[in-house]
Amino acid sequence: MGGDHGPSVTVPAALAFLDERSDVTMILVGTEQTLLDELRRAGREPGERLKVRHASEQVAMDEPPANALRNKRDSSMRVAIDLVKAGEADCSVSAGNTGALMAISRFVLKMLPGVERPAIASYLPSQRGRTVMLDLGANVNCTPDHLLQFAMMGAALVGAIDHNDRPSVGLLNIGEEDIKGNEVTKEAADLLRASTLNFYGNVEGDDIYKGTTDVVVCDGFVGNVALKTSEGLAQMLAAYLREEFKRNLLTKLAAMVALPVINSFKRRVDHRRYNGASLLGLKGIVVKSHGSADAFAFRFAIERAYDEVRNGLLELIRSRMDTQKVEVAS
Amino acid sequence: MGGDHGPSVTVPAALAFLDERSDVTMILVGTEQTLLDELRRAGREPGERLKVRHASEQVAMDEPPANALRNKRDSSMRVAIDLVKAGEADCSVSAGNTGALMAISRFVLKMLPGVERPAIASYLPSQRGRTVMLDLGANVNCTPDHLLQFAMMGAALVGAIDHNDRPSVGLLNIGEEDIKGNEVTKEAADLLRASTLNFYGNVEGDDIYKGTTDVVVCDGFVGNVALKTSEGLAQMLAAYLREEFKRNLLTKLAAMVALPVINSFKRRVDHRRYNGASLLGLKGIVVKSHGSADAFAFRFAIERAYDEVRNGLLELIRSRMDTQKVEVAS
Repeated sequence: MGGDHGPSVTVPAALAFLDERSDVTMILVGTEQTLLDELRRAGREPGERLKVRHASEQVAMDEPPANALRNKRDSSMRVAIDLVKAGEADCSVSAGNTGALMAISRFVLKMLPGVERPAIASYLPSQRGRTVMLDLGANVNCTPDHLLQFAMMGAALVGAIDHNDRPSVGLLNIGEEDIKGNEVTKEAADLLRASTLNFYGNVEGDDIYKGTTDVVVCDGFVGNVALKTSEGLAQMLAAYLREEFKRNLLTKLAAMVALPVINSFKRRVDHRRYNGASLLGLKGIVVKSHGSADAFAFRFAIERAYDEVRNGLLELIRSRMDTQKVEVAS
Repeated sequence: MGGDHGPSVTVPAALAFLDERSDVTMILVGTEQTLLDELRRAGREPGERLKVRHASEQVAMDEPPANALRNKRDSSMRVAIDLVKAGEADCSVSAGNTGALMAISRFVLKMLPGVERPAIASYLPSQRGRTVMLDLGANVNCTPDHLLQFAMMGAALVGAIDHNDRPSVGLLNIGEEDIKGNEVTKEAADLLRASTLNFYGNVEGDDIYKGTTDVVVCDGFVGNVALKTSEGLAQMLAAYLREEFKRNLLTKLAAMVALPVINSFKRRVDHRRYNGASLLGLKGIVVKSHGSADAFAFRFAIERAYDEVRNGLLELIRSRMDTQKVEVAS
């Protein structure tokens, strides 16, 4: 059980979720003693619905994924994914090293038929509700076919989570007329237009937060930069707002008066509510929590995985891939 | 004189700047009658330091750049750039069609020696001050050499505007260890490391607003997406904050109390103060204002062009390119 804070965050989140959903069984994977200590601290012990599985190794946050994959066969990450593969668990949630989680998941679980590359997808808030964006960093170089597959998987995710069977899909591009995208996005647009998807067309960066489409598709380099840039901007704006309210006695008084409004605003844009990125395209459900997540945030990642299982995400991806194949064949 | 609002914005901004700087002569380029009407409305008329140059055509905001270049030889944009070429103007500022402005500038002014591609650069606010980012959309496909040239030009811009001769340069990349960037960024990092520049190394999206480096370099696709994504996020957050303060009588009262703080915050993050993207690499100074700029914002674009002229930006780029050439040759 990884992430920046380890079991002190993941265990309380797991217990909170367990108490909410009576149909859930939780397997905590990690150093047994640490997990038992953490449970004791919460006044709990292992039982029918709460199991502990020992793993003797840990993948470090900055460890090269290839190393984690080759040399750490008994890492908590690997053991958890093995449980999914063996059918002992329906899904796995981790706050650990993203690259390692993807490499191990891909190696152990393999890909769904028709999927050449797994992708990382996450919901982002938008002015109209929320937007699924992918890929967020798993694939730096993508072919038009990859982007089409990402679009299918993103649409399946919206189908599973928001029960929207015909989500609109936008292809992330740039605005200048003469240089509208590179060759890959041009060809991807052709494929998307010819697909069974509800393709909206090209969208630009600001459309993500406008909520122009339900799904935004891009390669992992662009998606990762867009996501991280958003994080940086949000942090800067929050820091500035804090500074302004702390400037002097008068502004501190204003802050007290405005506190309920500011809190309501903060709840609305709280990125912790969007925690939980789905590793899509695998023969198993794996959700990645932000490494710096607290227990409140980590619970959302668990909930995402739970919803994906309950609403049959893998079947939705499979059936979309089949439909597309038939479409192409006919 | 283009942009979404035309001379009703650009003329007042030009007059304001003219009144501030006694060493400036302004040439307004556009439909003569419209410009004279606008001047009359402001109680002004052409004179020694305020000239009007008629142009019979206009480039539409959505016009294909190739069309503007080939068929509109008497557009206000073309006439203004021709003035720079002829040495009648030291710089040109436009709020018009970015692609057309770039195409016309490149065709008329040509490139500085050693620059293969022009780039669009802009300052963005950061927690430490401000960051120059480029390319923001002129070049979708870039070679490692192009990225190196962008870095040199961005460093020259910081030299001219912030009088910092040794700005740090970051290469925009993504964080996953195993897939750290594509081939182009890997090679670009090697070139930057071997260059005369103060190369910091790879940076991620959040580093832009953290202010980790003075300059952030990326290809135009990624840069444009990052910029537009930021615009979209800022708009969403502003809309949410407005909504929360307008929710009911109590929150409206809180808004009144917090107004001075909110206004001070807004001033600090006011994107209008960052208006004015530099078209770098040309044998002439051209600054692009945001199309939706108001007079307050457009004045900043004029100031940017003015500062670039006064502080010898073109010479700084030339000399950086020369140094680099010597370095490579030796």
